Amino acid sequence: MNIDLIVSADVIDKKKIKGKSVVVIDMLRATSVIVTAIKNGCREVIPVLTIDEALSLAQKYKDIILGGERNAVKIKGFHCSNSPLEYKEDVVKGKRLVITTSNGTRAIRGASDGDNIFIGSMLNGKAVAHRLKEVGQDVVIINAGTNGEFSIDDFICSGYIISCLKECLEGNIELTDIASTAYHIYSSHTDIISFIKYAKHYKTITDLGLKEDLEYCCSKDVTDVVPEYIDGIIKADIIS
Amino acid sequence: MNIDLIVSADVIDKKKIKGKSVVVIDMLRATSVIVTAIKNGCREVIPVLTIDEALSLAQKYKDIILGGERNAVKIKGFHCSNSPLEYKEDVVKGKRLVITTSNGTRAIRGASDGDNIFIGSMLNGKAVAHRLKEVGQDVVIINAGTNGEFSIDDFICSGYIISCLKECLEGNIELTDIASTAYHIYSSHTDIISFIKYAKHYKTITDLGLKEDLEYCCSKDVTDVVPEYIDGIIKADIIS
Repeated sequence: MNIDLIVSADVIDKKKIKGKSVVVIDMLRATSVIVTAIKNGCREVIPVLTIDEALSLAQKYKDIILGGERNAVKIKGFHCSNSPLEYKEDVVKGKRLVITTSNGTRAIRGASDGDNIFIGSMLNGKAVAHRLKEVGQDVVIINAGTNGEFSIDDFICSGYIISCLKECLEGNIELTDIASTAYHIYSSHTDIISFIKYAKHYKTITDLGLKEDLEYCCSKDVTDVVPEYIDGIIKADIIS
Repeated sequence: MNIDLIVSADVIDKKKIKGKSVVVIDMLRATSVIVTAIKNGCREVIPVLTIDEALSLAQKYKDIILGGERNAVKIKGFHCSNSPLEYKEDVVKGKRLVITTSNGTRAIRGASDGDNIFIGSMLNGKAVAHRLKEVGQDVVIINAGTNGEFSIDDFICSGYIISCLKECLEGNIELTDIASTAYHIYSSHTDIISFIKYAKHYKTITDLGLKEDLEYCCSKDVTDVVPEYIDGIIKADIIS
């Protein structure tokens, strides 16, 4: 199985993802939010690019939770911010979540040309790897990045998923140079916070007092849920 | 001093390099060739994109050496391949080198919007860092990459130059996430061959029996020469 990696939502090359399994990662915090919401019984997640798009969906459906951020802060009139800790069972169970964030939702929408599109994070890294093994296609990991730039947090999270893949495929994977670098960064920083502290994004998150979010998003394998993005909607993977 | 990094010749963003010092790296092997040729008395190096361009310059000037590669192999009718070991003093002294390679010359030409453009490699890493300190501008390191893709060899070489900069500026540098990752990859693999062996390019080079080239290109600081690219021509840095 060949594994490649794209470093930000701004440089997604459609040709690279066509016919492949794609994993989208925005670990701080959009994909951690989505995984948590689905784990806690959220029926489906609709990622949208603009606040207007979210508000107009809220007019259309009754059972909606609006979530997301701009500049890492909750959007006026929305139910939840981009903190995964807010997406508890009593908030999301049976509901439809509409989410818009600066980087993550853009990366998910940009992944549409992939064949199977999964939502990845530290929280479900091992489960994602097992799902990729089941599907058996070549894999491209898309890092949302931060404002179009490479982001350390998504990169090391990719390294974790690659290390899980390596384990469950008994080393039978072929890595591009960038995927190999992610794997090695993770391998030398398995306590990932020790590396994430070098990320620009780390400063933003800690400056906003969101250290609890950070610690939660860095937790490995708290769930087996592997959300899948099909025709504009993210649902719990049918097979899992 | 802010340090950023661009991962391949295909993704050079002119806005990012404007007004900055730029270091172009294609350590396996174009920029190692250029540094070696200049060190051994080559008068100037003209990087060109096509074989035709090189051949037509050979018609124009008498004192020319034609060097370069396609698919890592010497070009028919050229004097030298892309092996730095061929560019000895008795071959290049006082001569004008015209070079065309798959990735490196493209990266150098793509760097034209930078304010000061230096040619970097492991061979002159420390000298490049000192020159950047003298100039005092923000820095963008351009990795040539391999066929438009991120390449492990150029990335770890960038990490070495960043580590030299960190030392000579006493830690007074600000790294983007990608530059920080290069620095950490180098820091955990200071014997750089131990990491370069994961590069796709490593296989190409070793398959062609060019292990001696590889070892030479991985040698740190064999010269103080810092070639500079000005108006289409690379010369020994005026100050050095």
